[in-house]
Amino acid sequence: MVKVAICGGSGYTGAELLRILAQHPGVQVTAVTSERSAGKRVTDIFPHLLKYSTLVYEPMDPARLLSKADVFFLALPHAESQEAVEAFFSKGKKVIDLSADFRLSDISVYEKWYKTPHHFPTTLKKAVYGLPELYRKAIRKSRLIANPGCYPTGAVLALYPAIRDGLIDIDTIVVDSKSGTSGAGRKADVSISFCEVNEGFKAYGIGTHRHTPEIEQELSHIAGKPVMIDFTPHLVPMDRGIVTTAYAQLKKKLSTANVLNYYNRRYSKEPFVKVLEEGFYPNAKHVRGSNYCLVGIRVNERTNTLVMVSTIDNLVKGASGQAVQNMNIMLGLEETTALEGLAICP
Amino acid sequence: MVKVAICGGSGYTGAELLRILAQHPGVQVTAVTSERSAGKRVTDIFPHLLKYSTLVYEPMDPARLLSKADVFFLALPHAESQEAVEAFFSKGKKVIDLSADFRLSDISVYEKWYKTPHHFPTTLKKAVYGLPELYRKAIRKSRLIANPGCYPTGAVLALYPAIRDGLIDIDTIVVDSKSGTSGAGRKADVSISFCEVNEGFKAYGIGTHRHTPEIEQELSHIAGKPVMIDFTPHLVPMDRGIVTTAYAQLKKKLSTANVLNYYNRRYSKEPFVKVLEEGFYPNAKHVRGSNYCLVGIRVNERTNTLVMVSTIDNLVKGASGQAVQNMNIMLGLEETTALEGLAICP
Amino acid sequence: MVKVAICGGSGYTGAELLRILAQHPGVQVTAVTSERSAGKRVTDIFPHLLKYSTLVYEPMDPARLLSKADVFFLALPHAESQEAVEAFFSKGKKVIDLSADFRLSDISVYEKWYKTPHHFPTTLKKAVYGLPELYRKAIRKSRLIANPGCYPTGAVLALYPAIRDGLIDIDTIVVDSKSGTSGAGRKADVSISFCEVNEGFKAYGIGTHRHTPEIEQELSHIAGKPVMIDFTPHLVPMDRGIVTTAYAQLKKKLSTANVLNYYNRRYSKEPFVKVLEEGFYPNAKHVRGSNYCLVGIRVNERTNTLVMVSTIDNLVKGASGQAVQNMNIMLGLEETTALEGLAICP
Amino acid sequence: MVKVAICGGSGYTGAELLRILAQHPGVQVTAVTSERSAGKRVTDIFPHLLKYSTLVYEPMDPARLLSKADVFFLALPHAESQEAVEAFFSKGKKVIDLSADFRLSDISVYEKWYKTPHHFPTTLKKAVYGLPELYRKAIRKSRLIANPGCYPTGAVLALYPAIRDGLIDIDTIVVDSKSGTSGAGRKADVSISFCEVNEGFKAYGIGTHRHTPEIEQELSHIAGKPVMIDFTPHLVPMDRGIVTTAYAQLKKKLSTANVLNYYNRRYSKEPFVKVLEEGFYPNAKHVRGSNYCLVGIRVNERTNTLVMVSTIDNLVKGASGQAVQNMNIMLGLEETTALEGLAICP
Repeated sequence: MVKVAICGGSGYTGAELLRILAQHPGVQVTAVTSERSAGKRVTDIFPHLLKYSTLVYEPMDPARLLSKADVFFLALPHAESQEAVEAFFSKGKKVIDLSADFRLSDISVYEKWYKTPHHFPTTLKKAVYGLPELYRKAIRKSRLIANPGCYPTGAVLALYPAIRDGLIDIDTIVVDSKSGTSGAGRKADVSISFCEVNEGFKAYGIGTHRHTPEIEQELSHIAGKPVMIDFTPHLVPMDRGIVTTAYAQLKKKLSTANVLNYYNRRYSKEPFVKVLEEGFYPNAKHVRGSNYCLVGIRVNERTNTLVMVSTIDNLVKGASGQAVQNMNIMLGLEETTALEGLAICP
Repeated sequence: MVKVAICGGSGYTGAELLRILAQHPGVQVTAVTSERSAGKRVTDIFPHLLKYSTLVYEPMDPARLLSKADVFFLALPHAESQEAVEAFFSKGKKVIDLSADFRLSDISVYEKWYKTPHHFPTTLKKAVYGLPELYRKAIRKSRLIANPGCYPTGAVLALYPAIRDGLIDIDTIVVDSKSGTSGAGRKADVSISFCEVNEGFKAYGIGTHRHTPEIEQELSHIAGKPVMIDFTPHLVPMDRGIVTTAYAQLKKKLSTANVLNYYNRRYSKEPFVKVLEEGFYPNAKHVRGSNYCLVGIRVNERTNTLVMVSTIDNLVKGASGQAVQNMNIMLGLEETTALEGLAICP
Repeated sequence: MVKVAICGGSGYTGAELLRILAQHPGVQVTAVTSERSAGKRVTDIFPHLLKYSTLVYEPMDPARLLSKADVFFLALPHAESQEAVEAFFSKGKKVIDLSADFRLSDISVYEKWYKTPHHFPTTLKKAVYGLPELYRKAIRKSRLIANPGCYPTGAVLALYPAIRDGLIDIDTIVVDSKSGTSGAGRKADVSISFCEVNEGFKAYGIGTHRHTPEIEQELSHIAGKPVMIDFTPHLVPMDRGIVTTAYAQLKKKLSTANVLNYYNRRYSKEPFVKVLEEGFYPNAKHVRGSNYCLVGIRVNERTNTLVMVSTIDNLVKGASGQAVQNMNIMLGLEETTALEGLAICP
Repeated sequence: MVKVAICGGSGYTGAELLRILAQHPGVQVTAVTSERSAGKRVTDIFPHLLKYSTLVYEPMDPARLLSKADVFFLALPHAESQEAVEAFFSKGKKVIDLSADFRLSDISVYEKWYKTPHHFPTTLKKAVYGLPELYRKAIRKSRLIANPGCYPTGAVLALYPAIRDGLIDIDTIVVDSKSGTSGAGRKADVSISFCEVNEGFKAYGIGTHRHTPEIEQELSHIAGKPVMIDFTPHLVPMDRGIVTTAYAQLKKKLSTANVLNYYNRRYSKEPFVKVLEEGFYPNAKHVRGSNYCLVGIRVNERTNTLVMVSTIDNLVKGASGQAVQNMNIMLGLEETTALEGLAICP
């Protein structure tokens, strides 16, 4: 049994890690931290995590935690995570960081978008961006995984084959994403109270959302040259799920069937990416609680535009499920362990 | 008191006409038709329309209806509406048609997208597209209004100043729209049952939705030359509301403040269009049940893209409210009569 | 034009007062207060209240407010309201208090359930409980209205004819109520965040909710002797609406039709209470945004129990709409002014 | 591997059986039937059931199915299920019937409430009511399980210790239940369309719901004498979950802590029933997608009433999860196999 600790376990991604790991046969959760909930039981905060009725939140104390676990999941706020990653990584531990702190390889980009300095450039170079569909081999050999953001996971998986196979003009990409409310985290804030969100729909952070450079970094990596995009996130009155609708001009005339061939080829061996048949588009409801990503595409032949749509559960494939997937890869376990549950639908 | 009849009154747009007209001081609803509900009281189908507890649905019989009213609202299915429009219009009545049958001035476009012949080309030429912000003068003189579709209303109002004032490259327009479920109408269909829609989000009809040529017709009219767009509608788990996010390349560098100036100028005298200040974007929740359209914009200076966002209540400004607005204009009444109610929020 | 001030205008009941009064032809809102939002425009907090784009929140300063208005609506927290009521009432103003501070005529009951002293026993004696269906005449002559709580309004209207006409055993009453989330107010609190409320349903405050003594006071008044009840509130994942299901043993065998006769007789002249026909039960959706109360009943002949169901919009008939109804009565205006809007449905 | 067939697999309970069995290590689904979807793949109807992309619905043909499986789950409509049960049971198969056809041991009660004759009285006598908390031993030895209804499961588990330990007056029981919309099944019906259910709440079938005699049968069995109840179901705008609030007079004065002792004792060894601590009440959100039942209770000392609240997921513990639990018991497997997943929350 691999011993695992979760730092920052009183938010939704922490809770989701606990939920998923509860069904993992090779792992034992030995510690979970939370400043605001230290001393409370996990079930005091999350009554649905019934198997953790005796696990108690403790304060974040790296020195004390080091002896407790071999793998550390960090679900801490951005900027706060840097120190924690360093503390565990420098001691030889395996670290999966769910914050943005080690996702952007260019420090200046990080510092510009997150408006905070990065103190560990050497460690940053060791981090592998934890999107298995792109970096499975590197993940296997790494001890530090920068777990991707929720919007980037959906956007990159929607666009990957189209860019990788040179189908689209990378200067024309529009990414219009729609996320359930759990993406905003668990916090006391009027703007995410039920009566403000329910029966509403809105765009936010147009052109300024911090996931923009992360998406651009990965698309640029795929393209082999710099990509800039228009990215607009929206808030949907549902708990979970992200649907990303991406648009780009095709370089040459292709039918929907043509493009589907490219997508099917790229994703045929991926355990968690499913390409839908022509005429079908993914619904967030069909991945709720699961680690799957569904992708559907259509060529608008009138305008020669490729429209790509993906959906993931932002808390699973967009966060905690992908983190466990990365752990499985790092540990040499079956990649799908604890992640095969089908979506809860309806 | 002007006598008004509603043909097709057992759907959501019919019900919404009844709701709005109940507070109109100059109008009396003298008849309402429904094939499936003939003989039933309005309150049997819509218990919330308490003021209509003695109004009974009758079958659609133009001969009988002609003597009952001066103004006819038609909320009938596409194709079925053609005959009804002709029946009332040819007898000198004022007609406001909420179907798509008289919206597309080019018959071949209508027949291609709606896959049905149009039998009244002469009448079609008399129809005025009922978007007051564009055609107020023509509406005033007309006897036949083609009331705009819900998506086109939101999309055209989002894009109008940007195209009219020549700010954007009209070959780069992407229109990504999100609608509440009442847009699908009132019907028995598994796909819009609660458990299929709730906690879900999906795209549908990518590149093929019938509102595409209607949006293109109006944008082309504004631009003075043909416009083709990418249009993707999505289904949001909420009752009402459409948010439209539109993207286009700016022709030259402009700041958000620059573009807002154009928008404010175009809409300053419009009673039902409100342009939000820089940094604010519209939320469907803030127009729920009202006839207002909110518009927010932002220039993404990194990509030189203008992002335009609008929201309307699809059943009010996107259908029945706009129909009453058109009626007010046609009758020479105060345009805002019965339409000044603020949104129900939360 | 009567000048009206709203103290505590940045919560949902304050906003709803503004919404309703915007369509009142005899009233002008001259001031609105909020400590947390002082200096901000109403539309900064409530973008849907478009007609108040120039009205600015001011701090609560009775001395300054006295000259500004003749009628004061107080939508302040419990306990805080006492002083404000006194400040305006003692200067001859008309006051409608939406807090609980002047609802309970027995000071000891107030102090026990609200755990705070009451400093104005003399003024308390002048207050009239503002449920027009019970106290219309007294409201007309009063200058101080204690506007009823949301749960009490629904519960009392469900039970009134059954008790008044002696149909039920008052020692067997169970009141099981279900409320939308706006009843919890507008605040930053994890427990009412979207992700905690949506797709959930729970009971709370069983046997201890502060509306219990208020319901009991009014039922006792109707019965002419002390009534004690079991009251359980529940939280429903919707914005607005309360459905109350009440149970009591019939004193003698009666059919549903028999009991409906009593209900119809009691409510026949009430503008805002509608009794449904046999076999129909009220749905919160059918009063959303309106001042109506729908009531449906059924006799369970197997157990000789009368089941009574009512629904109201908690922010309208359960708060701000009823407050305006009381104002209309006090001022000798048509009681239904500004309150005739039908529900927004769907 | 035990071979399992599901008859009636295109509804929500059928889909949920497939979802749960997909993670069962000892079971293989060899056939699934559906009249309306025969010839379609499971994933055509339920895109989230990704592991069944090659399983095709077949028509219900007992002769053909007999050779395919050892255990038959029947998720057929009431009345239709009788024949199917007989067909499989008479051939020595193990049958778990999710319909109501074999739940009521008194045929006359069945025929009165379901308004249809029962053709298999001999087989009916062999059926065991599949509530493991009450009948675990009998289930182990049975070949025919009548899987309990969703409301009865929640109601009986809420009331069981109170009646079994003689705490309450059984003539005073009120059961007020609230269910998510999946309880209405998967069908094309305006009344369960999104726009009719969302933002609404209503009671239905007051005193006449068919689960009434089923609840009464089980409470009578526990009490050892006839029990009659008032039962009111309500529809909640959420996908899944039932919360049952039950009321009864205590026979003698007891504190909440006293009663909790009884509940804890009765349920201490139950793997799927969790009794909450004093002051906590169950939320449907905390069992979503899981097989757990949460129970909370409170004594209202003012009225000497015991209020009991339970929650289950109607599709899991209220249907398909409990069916798998029964199968595990029948087959001598670990009772919790495939059922240990924690709730998906938020």
